[in-house]
Amino acid sequence: MVEFNQKTLNAFITKARKPFEKQLAGLVKIPTVSADRNRKKDFEEAADLATKILRELGAEAESVATEGQPVVVGSLGNESKYPTVLIYNHLDVQPADPAEWDHDPFSLTITKDRYGGRGTTDDKGPALTALYAVKYAREASIPLNFRFVLEFEEEIGSPHFEKAIRSRKEMLQADSILVSDTVWVSREKPAIPFGLRGLVAATLSLETASRESHSGLVGGAARNPLAELFELVTRCVDPATGEVKIPGFYDNVLAAGKDEIQGFLESGFKVAQFKRAHGLKSLRFKETQQVLEAIWSRPTFEVHGMVGGYAGEGVKTVVPARGEVKVSMRLVPRQDPKRIIGLLRDSVKENNPDVKVKLEAVLEPYLASATGAHLQAAVEAVSIGFQKPPALVREGGSIGAAVSLNRLCKAPVVFLGLSLPEHGYHAPNEYFEWCQVRGGIRTFAHYFDRISKIPPVPSP
Amino acid sequence: MVEFNQKTLNAFITKARKPFEKQLAGLVKIPTVSADRNRKKDFEEAADLATKILRELGAEAESVATEGQPVVVGSLGNESKYPTVLIYNHLDVQPADPAEWDHDPFSLTITKDRYGGRGTTDDKGPALTALYAVKYAREASIPLNFRFVLEFEEEIGSPHFEKAIRSRKEMLQADSILVSDTVWVSREKPAIPFGLRGLVAATLSLETASRESHSGLVGGAARNPLAELFELVTRCVDPATGEVKIPGFYDNVLAAGKDEIQGFLESGFKVAQFKRAHGLKSLRFKETQQVLEAIWSRPTFEVHGMVGGYAGEGVKTVVPARGEVKVSMRLVPRQDPKRIIGLLRDSVKENNPDVKVKLEAVLEPYLASATGAHLQAAVEAVSIGFQKPPALVREGGSIGAAVSLNRLCKAPVVFLGLSLPEHGYHAPNEYFEWCQVRGGIRTFAHYFDRISKIPPVPSP
Repeated sequence: MVEFNQKTLNAFITKARKPFEKQLAGLVKIPTVSADRNRKKDFEEAADLATKILRELGAEAESVATEGQPVVVGSLGNESKYPTVLIYNHLDVQPADPAEWDHDPFSLTITKDRYGGRGTTDDKGPALTALYAVKYAREASIPLNFRFVLEFEEEIGSPHFEKAIRSRKEMLQADSILVSDTVWVSREKPAIPFGLRGLVAATLSLETASRESHSGLVGGAARNPLAELFELVTRCVDPATGEVKIPGFYDNVLAAGKDEIQGFLESGFKVAQFKRAHGLKSLRFKETQQVLEAIWSRPTFEVHGMVGGYAGEGVKTVVPARGEVKVSMRLVPRQDPKRIIGLLRDSVKENNPDVKVKLEAVLEPYLASATGAHLQAAVEAVSIGFQKPPALVREGGSIGAAVSLNRLCKAPVVFLGLSLPEHGYHAPNEYFEWCQVRGGIRTFAHYFDRISKIPPVPSP
Repeated sequence: MVEFNQKTLNAFITKARKPFEKQLAGLVKIPTVSADRNRKKDFEEAADLATKILRELGAEAESVATEGQPVVVGSLGNESKYPTVLIYNHLDVQPADPAEWDHDPFSLTITKDRYGGRGTTDDKGPALTALYAVKYAREASIPLNFRFVLEFEEEIGSPHFEKAIRSRKEMLQADSILVSDTVWVSREKPAIPFGLRGLVAATLSLETASRESHSGLVGGAARNPLAELFELVTRCVDPATGEVKIPGFYDNVLAAGKDEIQGFLESGFKVAQFKRAHGLKSLRFKETQQVLEAIWSRPTFEVHGMVGGYAGEGVKTVVPARGEVKVSMRLVPRQDPKRIIGLLRDSVKENNPDVKVKLEAVLEPYLASATGAHLQAAVEAVSIGFQKPPALVREGGSIGAAVSLNRLCKAPVVFLGLSLPEHGYHAPNEYFEWCQVRGGIRTFAHYFDRISKIPPVPSP
């Protein structure tokens, strides 16, 4: 038991570094690639480890089985007079092609203050940071109950999440929800997003033959499934502007208001920095406002990849038998994923009825009130924890689980992310940094202290 | 020494079967994939084997080194009063992905009369068949000199062929050229093509970032190289009709005349059979004439494959950093490849100046006179050898080497192919058949007999 103050917090953080690094190494070592369906054992191992970590905090914890990967839930504290915060993060990761990495993606490298490895910044590192802050909050007797949800299917759109948390509805009731899976504007500018884009991801596939053939023999008369898919995509999106051409797509889009855009512009976002952080050679737009609207408050239609035909060196003059394009649409508040799926199917049917649409992920967009007490607490906590005032922004990414938890608890969601743009979310050579862990533990501790003073909403 | 007649020919063929199969197995075993640049040893081994086979026929033979793969040349007979025939074939093959095959593509399988393996029908099997006919022709003292050219870069557009044969110009002079690398109309209908399409193959590549990034973070503002390449391709070709949209592309196209089209229609070609042979579910056209013009006498723009972005299972929401599309255009007589390359470059430059065009293969189209003495000899030889009269057609494929040899020798090229549509040129589970070898040896022997009576053109 210690008193909550800067001194005890700093001492805690200094002592936490070695065990934090050891636990992060343990989490990174398990290749929890949710897009890969042949990793049942890895996910069992990772769920066991997550359960163990929660129990070491003093929480009751269990792994909830689903038809996909498990969801680990936990509960720590049951004082009815204390408010309850639910901390959500995910421990699954994006695929990683070792050929594109400078080191084994599933073996943590520690170089000075840098932690390299798949999942270090998205989201194993920030998830673990939040748990260390909980440990301190318990030692400092901050009057707060904690609930935990650690997911293993976030990167594939949380297909089994809703059912899993509904089965533990009683246990997971909370007054607010905390998520640490978002990215700052820049190293100098922390960001608290109050809106998220949704997502509809799908594969569009076309088979025009039972096997590939020789273009000298059939070329001209044979259909070309790749060329037909290319044409279909260009009927869905104008790649020059990103404008989505599917009729009705923009009907319900909630555009960012003047004040919100003013906020975006004051966020410290710099186009040159953004390009550098993501290695982008050029952008669709030059104006800062256009860029910010495009990544935060406008929907998209993106091509992620393609399968079909010859992919080796040089050219092989085959007419492919089939092709598949991997696409997604990021949706903004008021765009209903169900309606958008219908529009996509209609558009495909009209343009090329032989193309099959397979849904791969569906996530709703989210927009919170920009003025709630929890959001204010977060702004203050970041200002103390990192000594930098945060910008209120929208997040271009999608966290379907956050929307599900918001519905389950009818409680506000606060996004307190720790990742920097250069950390490489989803990219090769992803990394995280000790300075973000240190500032993160501080920030979460101050946030917990502040929200412990927001009276809980009485149960109905 | 035997007399040339049906009896000695049949006896020769019966005795030839075992050694033929053994030699074909030896050729198939060497993976002479010319698109793969890391096979220097395989090509050396294959060139040695080809040289050995020619020497066993009694020919002087040598392997001519080039900056790419070698060209094996040979000479058999030097009687100035005899005419000379140059036999060209190729011993390199298309790539083969073992995952798509029912067996190891580089190990010959013999099932009853079928020979399975990469290169069995294109072109190792027919090449070897021609050499067995030469063996018989020598035993039967047919008064003909032979020259041989065996290439190892046909499948990648013969980039070093012209220089190699020019260096052996004297030795390779001939009165006619024979190529056995074409495909029949159907099992019932042999075909003698008197025209070939040319080819311009290229990769179109675009890099918009130094690494891939997360579409939630950059999507909307970041350029999407795959979507931009898709758009570029749809500006080059209409996939519904195959119509090439590059301005000026059709300017010099020599359309098939009325008589020629009549010949096409009388060739025995059947749309249903064509679809079945190549496993095509549907075609761009329904009418036989449209289909025949599309594959034989009209140019094309084909997409062969694509590299870039996520190609694994499901969807990974990345914005790719780069993409590459593999395309080719089949050209028809009077279309100049150099001019077409210029038009392609102009079109790419106008539509997306960031896209890089890399030429991968350039082959000229070819159109022979349909009335020459050698062509007549071929028609008669096929009618005897296979007991089926052949159709005079155009070939949709491209054999750049044939055009080079035609220029070198100023002599007519006769295409006496043995492959059937169902053998799977360039496709998985490619095979060849003994009946085509047997009929092929017969046909070539009769062809040699006939052309030995066409007086040689005196040297100038």
